[in-house]
Amino acid sequence: MVGNVIVGQSGGPTSVINSSLVGVYKTAKDRGANKVYGMLHGIKGLLDGQYVDLSEHIKTTLDIDLLKRTPSSFLGSCRYKLPEICDNKEVYEQIFAKLKELEISAFFYIGGNDSMDTIKKLSDYAILINSDIKFMGVPKTIDNDLAITDHTPGYGSAAKFIAASLKEIIRDGLVYDYPTITIVEIMGRNAGWLTAAAALSRSDDCEGVDMIYLPEKVFDIADFMEQVKKRSATGKSLVIAVSEGIKVADGRYVFELADHVEFVDAFGHKQLAGSAKFLADKIGSELGIKTRALEFSTLQRCAAHMTSRTDITEAFQVGGAAVKAAFEGETGKVVVLKRVSDDPYICITETHDVHKIANIEKKIPLEWITDDAYVTDDLIHYIRPLIQAELSPIMVDGLPRHLRLGDE
Amino acid sequence: MVGNVIVGQSGGPTSVINSSLVGVYKTAKDRGANKVYGMLHGIKGLLDGQYVDLSEHIKTTLDIDLLKRTPSSFLGSCRYKLPEICDNKEVYEQIFAKLKELEISAFFYIGGNDSMDTIKKLSDYAILINSDIKFMGVPKTIDNDLAITDHTPGYGSAAKFIAASLKEIIRDGLVYDYPTITIVEIMGRNAGWLTAAAALSRSDDCEGVDMIYLPEKVFDIADFMEQVKKRSATGKSLVIAVSEGIKVADGRYVFELADHVEFVDAFGHKQLAGSAKFLADKIGSELGIKTRALEFSTLQRCAAHMTSRTDITEAFQVGGAAVKAAFEGETGKVVVLKRVSDDPYICITETHDVHKIANIEKKIPLEWITDDAYVTDDLIHYIRPLIQAELSPIMVDGLPRHLRLGDE
Repeated sequence: MVGNVIVGQSGGPTSVINSSLVGVYKTAKDRGANKVYGMLHGIKGLLDGQYVDLSEHIKTTLDIDLLKRTPSSFLGSCRYKLPEICDNKEVYEQIFAKLKELEISAFFYIGGNDSMDTIKKLSDYAILINSDIKFMGVPKTIDNDLAITDHTPGYGSAAKFIAASLKEIIRDGLVYDYPTITIVEIMGRNAGWLTAAAALSRSDDCEGVDMIYLPEKVFDIADFMEQVKKRSATGKSLVIAVSEGIKVADGRYVFELADHVEFVDAFGHKQLAGSAKFLADKIGSELGIKTRALEFSTLQRCAAHMTSRTDITEAFQVGGAAVKAAFEGETGKVVVLKRVSDDPYICITETHDVHKIANIEKKIPLEWITDDAYVTDDLIHYIRPLIQAELSPIMVDGLPRHLRLGDE
Repeated sequence: MVGNVIVGQSGGPTSVINSSLVGVYKTAKDRGANKVYGMLHGIKGLLDGQYVDLSEHIKTTLDIDLLKRTPSSFLGSCRYKLPEICDNKEVYEQIFAKLKELEISAFFYIGGNDSMDTIKKLSDYAILINSDIKFMGVPKTIDNDLAITDHTPGYGSAAKFIAASLKEIIRDGLVYDYPTITIVEIMGRNAGWLTAAAALSRSDDCEGVDMIYLPEKVFDIADFMEQVKKRSATGKSLVIAVSEGIKVADGRYVFELADHVEFVDAFGHKQLAGSAKFLADKIGSELGIKTRALEFSTLQRCAAHMTSRTDITEAFQVGGAAVKAAFEGETGKVVVLKRVSDDPYICITETHDVHKIANIEKKIPLEWITDDAYVTDDLIHYIRPLIQAELSPIMVDGLPRHLRLGDE
């Protein structure tokens, strides 16, 4: 008898986080769960008594197919970090009282680093009070910065959107017969995995991006300007990918460089441009070349119309594996992906002690970054399997159809 | 005997401008043209002797299918405006000498307003010198601002990308349980057609954007702030679409408002933020609400992975219709689309005197814009048929495949 279970989503959304939700829901139901509750806005919603019975919202197989294709967190999200147990026991007492009231036997949390921290604390507290509720983490993040796991669900689809869009931007950027420079800013404050996916744009039918700048290496503005000058001198147009997190030697972000004069606009506000905009303006004014700065912004985490089927499938699998593990008695664990073969690409799931994962940030190994502002083939071989295959959107009246809570 | 023909692409690219190129190429070949030349970088390339024999680059039916799905101008583009005939006869002499050398009987130019001006001048000059070369314009522009034609190929796909992406951005933007405001800036300096497409995001499964601001109406900042304050007071997150071309009462663009103080960054350059960024910063600092500014930038004109099949088909048809008309003796004309029925949507092609089209900018009728920062159902009914149906990308190794000149 597995009783009732509850699942929540937390942190920044991805295009495939709902596929993990489907994985938890369907596997729990298939394995005999009575009710599957969904916390609204994560643990914060649970504390406020906000939750739904998922069976009332996911009724048909069409609902499941739509939910897999729906970006952002179906249940809503939060950015709430639990206090240390010793600092605020009351919060934990509230949560466990709520779980007892709902007769919960297993608790699943889909999220990134902060969410794994939540699983860690809740499972620690369960040991303290001798509760037999199981707590399992289901990984997601477009940033791919979770430790231990080979990669993180959400990353492959974001990488695919970035590479596909860059191929189009490159075609667009090379259309004139004079040099232009397009600088594209990509998410990832400390880890360059998303920006590195720009390298996938180089292929038989595409020149690819010319340079890639990652936050793992100090950004040298003088060298950057020299490179741009040299490479555009031949009349060639350039497309350059930069991480939002690139920093100069003194530790400041590039986008902070525009800020050390007290700039106020017509209304008295300071304005910060992005790194790409800053660099584009600098090239334009110093080298006199036509430039354009472009940010993918939230599109890279919500472009569900361009997902990787590999990613969608794995997102489902980590959800399902979490349920299986909990129902078999595991707790305080995170499901991780383990790549067992590159060619053919094969990845399996395992569970791992959450204490050894939470709050560790995985960056790109420096040996995968080249001195000429690019990445190695090893890094490209690592990413490429993750963007393979498609799950076409279900189009209704010309637009991708989604499932929205409350619409059923 | 129709002899040889030549075709060029000009102005800003679109996702479907190559479908028009295929329409010209295939129809000319099917109707007995000997050689179909392509000017590289438009009329400017022709002047420099840069052209290709298209048969050497479009060899298979797969090439045709790839080319229809390839964004940007396959032949390259230019922004060259011909001088008045009376000011510089030599240019015209050069062009016609080149056309004679290539034994050209018909000249096709795919482009927007400036390109139609080129067709007008060349056909005028042909009359002056008694040349029997036919000159035909093939319309394209994402801006949809060409006169006479019901709409312009390129617009439907850009509108579809905007609406589809907004649906995703809205799902992403409403994920937290506190109010956030996302301002999305959309292309269109003087005409709001692209920004108006944001209204398509409102549907059974989506709240849609909350407000739409078009350049056809004066932008009142105080009223905008009041609206934002009122609507977000309920705790609701907002997604707002603004045209890059919105202007305040004194005629300045909103993005210029940040510029009247002499802002210099660390390197001594003035920086201009976009309209969305400016408004987001203002809301953030004055109302203390979390905001995000987002620009679709060139993605809206090059996102070939999200095209409208209606648009692709019509882009092909206007190319084909131009060839048919020229081969039947017409010249100095532009192909236009005429909507003969809304439901079912039926559009036919006609030809129209280029003198009555070139250099006229079509804006949104004011009666299609409501006082509460939205658009009327009439405008939505006008746009919706143009985004219907899909032409799925041909995916290779996880990414959309394109055809690139020189790759065959």
